[in-house]
Amino acid sequence: MAQKPSIPKGTRDFGPNETAARNYIFDTIKSVFKTYGFSQIETPAMENLSTLLGKYGEEGDKLLFRILNSGDAFAKVDLSENDSKKISLQVCEKGLRYDLTVPFARYVVQHRDEITFPFKRFQIQPVWRADRPQKGRYREFYQCDADVIGSKSQLNELELVQIVDKVFQQFGIRVCIKINNRKLLTGLAEIAGAPDQVTDITVAIDKIDKIGLEAVKNEMREKGLSEQAITVIEPVLTLSGSNREKMAQMKNIFQGEICSESGLKGVAEIEELLDYIELADIQNEVEIDLSLARGLNYYTGAIFEVKALDFAIGSICGGGRYDNLTGIFGLPDTSGVGISFGADRIYDVLGGLNKFPEQLRSCTQILFADMGEVPYLIPVVSQLRERGIACEIYPEKSKLKKQFDYADKKNIPFLSICGSNEAETGMIQLKNLASGEQRSFDKGDLDGICAFISAS
Amino acid sequence: MAQKPSIPKGTRDFGPNETAARNYIFDTIKSVFKTYGFSQIETPAMENLSTLLGKYGEEGDKLLFRILNSGDAFAKVDLSENDSKKISLQVCEKGLRYDLTVPFARYVVQHRDEITFPFKRFQIQPVWRADRPQKGRYREFYQCDADVIGSKSQLNELELVQIVDKVFQQFGIRVCIKINNRKLLTGLAEIAGAPDQVTDITVAIDKIDKIGLEAVKNEMREKGLSEQAITVIEPVLTLSGSNREKMAQMKNIFQGEICSESGLKGVAEIEELLDYIELADIQNEVEIDLSLARGLNYYTGAIFEVKALDFAIGSICGGGRYDNLTGIFGLPDTSGVGISFGADRIYDVLGGLNKFPEQLRSCTQILFADMGEVPYLIPVVSQLRERGIACEIYPEKSKLKKQFDYADKKNIPFLSICGSNEAETGMIQLKNLASGEQRSFDKGDLDGICAFISAS
Repeated sequence: MAQKPSIPKGTRDFGPNETAARNYIFDTIKSVFKTYGFSQIETPAMENLSTLLGKYGEEGDKLLFRILNSGDAFAKVDLSENDSKKISLQVCEKGLRYDLTVPFARYVVQHRDEITFPFKRFQIQPVWRADRPQKGRYREFYQCDADVIGSKSQLNELELVQIVDKVFQQFGIRVCIKINNRKLLTGLAEIAGAPDQVTDITVAIDKIDKIGLEAVKNEMREKGLSEQAITVIEPVLTLSGSNREKMAQMKNIFQGEICSESGLKGVAEIEELLDYIELADIQNEVEIDLSLARGLNYYTGAIFEVKALDFAIGSICGGGRYDNLTGIFGLPDTSGVGISFGADRIYDVLGGLNKFPEQLRSCTQILFADMGEVPYLIPVVSQLRERGIACEIYPEKSKLKKQFDYADKKNIPFLSICGSNEAETGMIQLKNLASGEQRSFDKGDLDGICAFISAS
Repeated sequence: MAQKPSIPKGTRDFGPNETAARNYIFDTIKSVFKTYGFSQIETPAMENLSTLLGKYGEEGDKLLFRILNSGDAFAKVDLSENDSKKISLQVCEKGLRYDLTVPFARYVVQHRDEITFPFKRFQIQPVWRADRPQKGRYREFYQCDADVIGSKSQLNELELVQIVDKVFQQFGIRVCIKINNRKLLTGLAEIAGAPDQVTDITVAIDKIDKIGLEAVKNEMREKGLSEQAITVIEPVLTLSGSNREKMAQMKNIFQGEICSESGLKGVAEIEELLDYIELADIQNEVEIDLSLARGLNYYTGAIFEVKALDFAIGSICGGGRYDNLTGIFGLPDTSGVGISFGADRIYDVLGGLNKFPEQLRSCTQILFADMGEVPYLIPVVSQLRERGIACEIYPEKSKLKKQFDYADKKNIPFLSICGSNEAETGMIQLKNLASGEQRSFDKGDLDGICAFISAS
C-alpha cells in the first residue's frame, strides 16, 4: 500500500545541518551586498515561456522545465499532428526560471517607471535546468546575483571586485580574482586582421597553460588565421609581469602598425579599474588574465572570474559587463555589470577546507531534560528565550539516556537536569557537555545562566 | 520586434521595498522558531507526482502545476487516444509543491534513519497552486510552517501557542489565539448518537455567530439529526464563561447519560494545555472555541487558529495535531503537531496597521555624491563598510539634483557632498536629510561619523 518516497533526480533535500550551512553562505553574501547599497528583489519561479525561449541558445531552450497549462491543457490541441515540439508549445505557456539574469532584464523593463537608476539589485533564488544530473550538477540550484544597471562607470566594477574580496575574506577562502575585458579581445582580433574570429582566438589563448605556445599557434593556424595575425597575437600569449606591465604591453600592441580603438578603450577601462583597486585595500590577489573568456558572446566590457587558491574546483564566482541585456525586452542602451556567486561550489570549498563556523552545527543552546518537573521549567525557559537563548524542554518523560542522546545528536552544548530537589529549592542545574563543567544557579539568576552559556 | 514583458497571472514580482518587508516577516518568524529549538529544512520545488496526487482531494489534484518531462515528452505517448487526463499523466511525472506538509511527511519517511526524534523542523518556502487568481489569492505564495513530529506531549501544543504569541508581539499585532480539539467534536457527535456526522455538526455550530441559535438547530434538523441529538448539542452552542468554565461544562456533558471517552480525552488535553499556558506568561488572548473546525478531516487533536483583533482579515495563522500524517508514506503511528503562518495576510495586516518598522524603507545609510573626488572617497567608504555602515558612492558625475533625487527615492537618510575642498583638507561633510543637520568630520574620525549616523 505505502509508497516508497523519493524525490525527482537532480533535486535535493536539505536537512537541518545543510540548511544551516547554506544559510550561512547566503546570509554572508547578502550582508556584504547590503553594505554596498544593493537591494534585494524576488521574481516568480514561473515565467512566460515567451520570456525565456531564445535567450539561452538552442541547447538552453531544451533545458527549460515547462509547466503544463492548468485546466484541460490538451482540450483544444490537435494531437493528430504528432509534432511534439508544436504540441508542447500549445500545452505549456510557462516555464521555470533558468537563471536570474533574464528574469532580471524582464523585471527592469517591466518596472522601468518605478525603478531608481542606477539600479543596484541582488537576488538569491533557485533556478531549474533539465540538465543530465551528475556529480556537482543539479536540476535545482540557487544563484546569488548582484547587478548594477544604468551606469557605465568603472566604479561599479570596483565595487563588484570589493564585494568578491570581502565575501571570500569572510568565508576565510583565499581566492584569485581574474579580470579581463572583452574589448581587449575584440581589439586583438582587429589588429590581427580577423575581427570575426574573436572566439577562435580567445579559445586558443585560453589553452596556453595546458597545451603550450606552439600548440596554441597551430590551433590558430587550423582556424585559418594567417602567419601575420599569429605574429601580432604571439606577444599577448607570453604576456608577463604585473597587471600594470601587462596593460602597458597591451597598449603598445594596440598602438602599433594597426591601431585598435576597441583595444585601447579596453586598456583604459582596466587601467581605471586598477587605479580604483589600488585605493580600495583589496586583500585577495587580482590578476589581469587575457585568456578569460567567460560568457564571451554576452559580455561587452569587464569579465570576472574567481578561483579558490587552496581547493581544486571550477570558478566559484563570475560575471561581467553587458551593454544590451534589456534590449531583447524593448529597452536598448542600458548598460549593466554583475556578478554571480556559485553557492553549491562555495559549499564544497567551505566543507573541503573545514571553514564552516563551529556554531552552525547546533541551533539549541540548552536542553532541559524532562524529570517530571515541566511546570517548574516552563517560566524559566520562557525567560531565557526572551533573552534570545534557544532552549528546548524534552517533551517526553523518557529515560535520561534517551534525552541525553537527543542533546548529543542535535549538538546541544548544555544540558539541564532539574528534578524535584531543584524545583523545591528554586535552583537550575546546568552542565557544559563538552567540558563536563557543572553549575547550579538560582532560577532567577538569568544573568548568571546567560554568562555561563556565552562563556563557552 | 521587442516583446512586451509580463509575468504569468497570479504571480508577483517583489521590488526592493516589498522584499525588505517580506524578509522582515520571515526573519521575525524564523528567529522565534529558532529560540524554541526548531531547525530549518528545505525540500525541492518539484516533487514526483506520485508523492503529491491524492493528498489534497480531487480538487487539489486539479490545482497541481505539472511539469512536462524533459527530452521529447510526447515521443512514446499514444496521442490518438485523445484522453487528456491519461496523456498528462504520461507526459508529466513531476509537479510543483502544493504545500509544505506533504513534502515534510515525505521527507520524514525518506530520512527517518537520519532524523533525531522528536523532530522539530521549520520550513519557509514558496508553494504553487493553479487556483483562479483573485484579490489576495496567488498562484505562488510562501508558507512558514513549524511542526514537531514524534511526540504526543501537550508541551508541544504549548510551545506552538507561545511561538504564535511571541511572533505577533514582535509584529505589534494584537491577536486572539483560538483553540479547539477534534476529540471534543468527535465526543459531541458520539453523545448526540450521530458519530458519523461530526462534520455536519461542526459546520452547523460554526455558523452560530452569523445565523443564530434557531437557524443552527434548523440546519441540524435538515442534516437529519434527531431532536434528542439537538437537545444534547444545544448547551454546547450557548457555552459561555472562561476557558476553564467552558471545559467544566464540556466535562459534564461528556459524563452525562451517554459518556464519551473521546470527549473526556479532549477535555483532559485542553485542560493540560491551559495549565501550561497559565505558567507561560502568554500576552495575547487565548480562547477555547468549539466552533473551530479548520482542517477537520486531517487533525486528530488540538486545532489552532489566529485572528487579528484590529484588522478585518481571515485567519493569519493556523494549525493542529495530526496522528497519521506519515502513514501514507509507510510510517504509521507518528503523531505530529504544527502551525503555519500566512505571510501574505500578515503583510496586509502590518501594512494596514502601519506596523512595519520605519528603517525597512532604506537599506543604504549614506550616499556619497560624486563631485569629481571619487578616488578620495573610495578608502573612506571602504572603512565605513568595514564597520557595517551601508554606503554608496553615486557612480556618475551627474548634476547634484539628480544625485539628490536618487537619495530621496531610495530613502537614504544621509548625504555626503565632498568636493575638492574636502579632499584637500581631508574632511567629510555629512547631512542628515530629514533634520537638515549638517556636520563636518575628519576623514579618519570613523567613530564620530558612526555616532552621527546612529544617533538619528
